[in-house]
Amino acid sequence: MTVSETTAARTAAVIGMGTIGLGWAALFASAGMRVCVNSRRPDAEQQVRAAMKLYAASLPSGPTDPDELVSRMEFEPDVARAVEGADIVQENAPEDLALKQDLFARIGAAAPDRALLLSSTSTLLPDDLGAAMDDPSRLLVAHPFNPAHIVPLVELVAGSRTNRGAVDEAVAFYRGLGKTPVVLRRALPGFAANRLQSALLRESIHLVREGVVSVAELDEIVTSSIGSRWAAVGPFRAFHLGGGPGGLRHWFEHLGAGLERSWAGLGDPPVDEATVSAVLAQAEEAFGSRSYEDLAAERDLAQNAVIAALAQVRRPPETQSRAARSNST
Amino acid sequence: MTVSETTAARTAAVIGMGTIGLGWAALFASAGMRVCVNSRRPDAEQQVRAAMKLYAASLPSGPTDPDELVSRMEFEPDVARAVEGADIVQENAPEDLALKQDLFARIGAAAPDRALLLSSTSTLLPDDLGAAMDDPSRLLVAHPFNPAHIVPLVELVAGSRTNRGAVDEAVAFYRGLGKTPVVLRRALPGFAANRLQSALLRESIHLVREGVVSVAELDEIVTSSIGSRWAAVGPFRAFHLGGGPGGLRHWFEHLGAGLERSWAGLGDPPVDEATVSAVLAQAEEAFGSRSYEDLAAERDLAQNAVIAALAQVRRPPETQSRAARSNST
Repeated sequence: MTVSETTAARTAAVIGMGTIGLGWAALFASAGMRVCVNSRRPDAEQQVRAAMKLYAASLPSGPTDPDELVSRMEFEPDVARAVEGADIVQENAPEDLALKQDLFARIGAAAPDRALLLSSTSTLLPDDLGAAMDDPSRLLVAHPFNPAHIVPLVELVAGSRTNRGAVDEAVAFYRGLGKTPVVLRRALPGFAANRLQSALLRESIHLVREGVVSVAELDEIVTSSIGSRWAAVGPFRAFHLGGGPGGLRHWFEHLGAGLERSWAGLGDPPVDEATVSAVLAQAEEAFGSRSYEDLAAERDLAQNAVIAALAQVRRPPETQSRAARSNST
Repeated sequence: MTVSETTAARTAAVIGMGTIGLGWAALFASAGMRVCVNSRRPDAEQQVRAAMKLYAASLPSGPTDPDELVSRMEFEPDVARAVEGADIVQENAPEDLALKQDLFARIGAAAPDRALLLSSTSTLLPDDLGAAMDDPSRLLVAHPFNPAHIVPLVELVAGSRTNRGAVDEAVAFYRGLGKTPVVLRRALPGFAANRLQSALLRESIHLVREGVVSVAELDEIVTSSIGSRWAAVGPFRAFHLGGGPGGLRHWFEHLGAGLERSWAGLGDPPVDEATVSAVLAQAEEAFGSRSYEDLAAERDLAQNAVIAALAQVRRPPETQSRAARSNST
């Protein structure tokens, strides 16, 4: 991870202490930023201290001393006071529109003019979030993926009143943290990545419901084929290469007619009690005996290894290690 | 990659010399197997020699001398003679049912009783493939993913007359090669992974058509979020962890009602000329200036790095390298 000096010199207010808020707080602190944590829970500091022990072990920059992370944090239960010195406000409150509208009105009134106002929402649109603000020109959605301190993507979604300069600053800020910000050209419910996830989940549930594969087999199919493929190259580039030297044009000419037919054959399963029970029973069998912490640590280790391996092969050849060049396991 | 001695001692007949056939030939030869290549092209040997130069560089076991791979191969234009000493027959002819039915009738008549008869088809069902055979009990679909020498998954799909023992032997054979075979419980058109790919492609094309993202942005979104996530953990395990300590049950309770609604909001784009032209124009801009060989080599390097990184973290802790344990880039 590359952290720019400009990023390290900044102060962030992190609003809300759920999984996503904790992930941002860990990442911001690991980049050297001052972090003001806003939560009304009386035990906020103890809670953050406990969480940092887990998060500090799986930071993309390598394991870090959790106490060092916490030493860069302050705890402020009042939202107006929490944001008053902030360059960056990252909001992670529950997905409740009225609550977030009220929150952003108060944040907008108390934060410095220079502050970027960023919402981690995965379901609400920026114009709705800023509806109660006098000036939402520096408000935009900055949607991370769980775990927020590990997954590189941040979807940036501007509202109709967001200033273009604020979008550019947000891009620079997240790049400075080592993230991969992508600015969406339009605000659509679910944005982009969650819509793609949802499409794949629908067919996954269909295949389990139809008895083609079990939950564990579906997971193994994905990790051993399209998962590692899409970690390496996105779907369009993958299909472009699937078309051979003729590329995506050949692929469409060859398979285009069958595409609409294959889409028509995809499943549209009901999310009824029988379906959910069947999936849950198989999930219980597949990984129910292991704790959340154990499974999450295993996922984080694997995901960091994938991201680090890709960063290594994408470097200029002269800085690559011999192992990455030779692909040896 | 772990190759078992039993695998190395075997003889394979590889039928058809397209991208998939060449991938299998390279992998089988790299595992020490004797490979009889069946193609009616008069320049088959020169063609295979040229291809092995590319494939030998990206074998999961590390770069290999292409001449050494070719030294384990014979070239036999007659299919009956090609399969007569085979333990394994891997068929990779064009996706034409009548052609493959005729081919398997001739393979079945000429191959030893012990031979496993495996089809790389991605679209045809095993009962249809074996319709013209006297005895299809050792015929099954063994569907790889391009590039066949790199992507671990092999979907195994038995027909109604396939012997259970043949399925077990096929599982052992591909495991011995270091692949990840998964036996499907039912034969559905498109099997499993291609149906999942198709579902994601439908929404990808929808998002580009709706102007939410460009082709290049869609690819970047996937590689920097759900791609590396699904390389590390499959979708069900990922959503189980997305549910926090309450797991998949909590996730369904929390989001289950919204799931059907979000599926109803997904796109169903037409594959008409305007759509294909728009996607092709953006794809041209994104990667049209680079050659197929260059893009394929980059993909293979990245995909091998991902697979190697995951193999490393999945080993018992005492055999892991320090780099993998600390996640340092």
